Amino acid sequence: MNNFEFFSPTCFVFGKDTETKTGEYVKRFGGTKVLIHYGGGSVIRSGLLDRVKRSLDEASVHYTELGGVKPNPRSGLVYEGIELCKKENVDFILAVGGGSTIDSSKAIAAGVLYEGDFWDFYRGKRIEKALGVGTVLTIAAAGSEGSPDSVITKEEGMFKRGASGDAIRPKFSILNPALTQSLPPFQTAAGITDIMAHLYERYLTNTRDVEVTDRLIEALLLTMRHEGPRVIADPDNYEARANIMWAGTMAHTNSCGVGRSQDWLSHTIEHELSAMYDCAHGAGLAVTMPAVFTYELSHNVMRFAQVANRVWGCQMDFENPEVTAKAGIEAFRNFLISIGMPKNFKELGAKEEDIPKLVKVLCRGDGRDGTISGFVTLNEDDCDKIYRMMI
Amino acid sequence: MNNFEFFSPTCFVFGKDTETKTGEYVKRFGGTKVLIHYGGGSVIRSGLLDRVKRSLDEASVHYTELGGVKPNPRSGLVYEGIELCKKENVDFILAVGGGSTIDSSKAIAAGVLYEGDFWDFYRGKRIEKALGVGTVLTIAAAGSEGSPDSVITKEEGMFKRGASGDAIRPKFSILNPALTQSLPPFQTAAGITDIMAHLYERYLTNTRDVEVTDRLIEALLLTMRHEGPRVIADPDNYEARANIMWAGTMAHTNSCGVGRSQDWLSHTIEHELSAMYDCAHGAGLAVTMPAVFTYELSHNVMRFAQVANRVWGCQMDFENPEVTAKAGIEAFRNFLISIGMPKNFKELGAKEEDIPKLVKVLCRGDGRDGTISGFVTLNEDDCDKIYRMMI
Repeated sequence: MNNFEFFSPTCFVFGKDTETKTGEYVKRFGGTKVLIHYGGGSVIRSGLLDRVKRSLDEASVHYTELGGVKPNPRSGLVYEGIELCKKENVDFILAVGGGSTIDSSKAIAAGVLYEGDFWDFYRGKRIEKALGVGTVLTIAAAGSEGSPDSVITKEEGMFKRGASGDAIRPKFSILNPALTQSLPPFQTAAGITDIMAHLYERYLTNTRDVEVTDRLIEALLLTMRHEGPRVIADPDNYEARANIMWAGTMAHTNSCGVGRSQDWLSHTIEHELSAMYDCAHGAGLAVTMPAVFTYELSHNVMRFAQVANRVWGCQMDFENPEVTAKAGIEAFRNFLISIGMPKNFKELGAKEEDIPKLVKVLCRGDGRDGTISGFVTLNEDDCDKIYRMMI
Repeated sequence: MNNFEFFSPTCFVFGKDTETKTGEYVKRFGGTKVLIHYGGGSVIRSGLLDRVKRSLDEASVHYTELGGVKPNPRSGLVYEGIELCKKENVDFILAVGGGSTIDSSKAIAAGVLYEGDFWDFYRGKRIEKALGVGTVLTIAAAGSEGSPDSVITKEEGMFKRGASGDAIRPKFSILNPALTQSLPPFQTAAGITDIMAHLYERYLTNTRDVEVTDRLIEALLLTMRHEGPRVIADPDNYEARANIMWAGTMAHTNSCGVGRSQDWLSHTIEHELSAMYDCAHGAGLAVTMPAVFTYELSHNVMRFAQVANRVWGCQMDFENPEVTAKAGIEAFRNFLISIGMPKNFKELGAKEEDIPKLVKVLCRGDGRDGTISGFVTLNEDDCDKIYRMMI
């Protein structure tokens, strides 16, 4: 196991009706003038935004607001948010929505206290400080409610890039599983896929002797395997939603990923798809992961056999572990299809003829040197092959 | 799943040589004048105390010190520590040791900022504030390095009682698995037992639909089942020690116990044993748990069958789940014996003739009303029977 520091000082407030406590938590974590940041109409239509505002009013917290966050959030709105916060002397950002809204909020929070261009952080500059961020989560997926990460797409060049830093970890996150009950099945399934991707990306490690984190990841994957279909079959199942929501948060605080190298190649390869086609990140991952895993398999057959056996219940073939390993990838692919995820470029809305362009942005875009690294290192030729496996 | 708040803002610094960073972390969390609190000679003999002091010197942090913490830490030393801190204007407590030292440090930290008798907290008073506490852990066992809990024994009456509050969660904990390599095998095994007890106490719940936390607990139990014997067979195995140490911390931050009722009857029943005989808490738990579980079994056979099947690999007997459930308790008992734990009163040094006194202190001591509650509710007669099962 590698040395590590793990610091997750987010206060998680979990359960029914917890959004009515938003004002109380904003105050507890020092917010006096809040920017409420959100996406489109659903948080308005559902009455959630009103409930949150009422809670802020009751706590005598002032606020201004900025809607319009889109999936795969863009830099344009981040710049707008930064300007608004400066003008209105905002000292706390409250994200009401999913991963996109939270990521956009984190970018604004870091940008307000930085004199340069916030995009510097997405090109690798360390985030030293940021306004406090709180979240009211509406979808179990990205894990951004408990992570130090943010992913933003820059309109010029359509680069989708991530930044990370403890300064942008949310101060508190309000997790009410009931808020996710109104999600369309496709979005629920895309969220499930994203959570499982966060687990696989950590599972695929080159660090040896990491049983404790292996087991924790498997525990969360098993939970998703069991609760995922339950919630797809019965969208109003609060208990299944609750299990998925806590699994989604635990998947990404990194308590199950400490002390080990991680992969993240599926995310990296998918990002170019959602940047180019504006598809749901989870849907892109559903198509990407089986291809990436199949390509990576020979790098460590036993690791894929282990997850196949322990999570997917595939009998271990002791003479031919590769059979088990492949069966696990196939079981995962079938699981994703069963919950309604796309299985190839066509279903995703991606085009074969775009592959050269995708590979170029992926491997050469925004300062990259022709390779991307994780569980294995891939060059342009590898990435071309992987995209073609998804056709 | 029940509603909950989960807030674990402890910074965990894990790995080889991390104790050399102690001074840096004390400063980061605001300490300027530190009380170094520790137990007996081992931290001196091993040179650890000197390394910690050197680190504080390098960070220009002032310190005073108080040794002498014993297993099952006593109130007397806590009073002494509180006086010393007031006299020396200490603003941060640094525990160098195991659970006893950390628990004693937490009690001092709360007591310094309280005008009344610190024992009030151990009789149920809420801890509103405390000095910051940091830890340098020397044994994987109690989980106190990441928990809001402290257990102290009051000399008058020998009451062993717990207090809990977010104010006494450590600000940082330094976890170097190598520091545990010099532990005698018995203490290592007692620590393993304590960690597994923390997991079982959470597993035995009356809350339904808690798959995610069930799976996380099982993951940590599986880790202990596999890594425990490895470290007993090979005390210098750093990797096994590392897996056990992170499992021990994760077992008790409560991330795997949120949203569910918990048991804690084995702890409650054991506390009277270690208070009366001054035995190792883990050793007491090894004798107590199989008896308590057997007594509780009929309350929820399927829960015991589940852990038997998923953790201990017992074949599920679908016609007679009770057979599986009992086989799981037996497998756990044999595991504990195999790592060198005592299996009965005699091996523990407890006496049959003391049972009436144990039951009285347990059920009537320090304000209790004749019953104790957890997974089930037990009266004096039940507790008498349970202690007799341990003979």
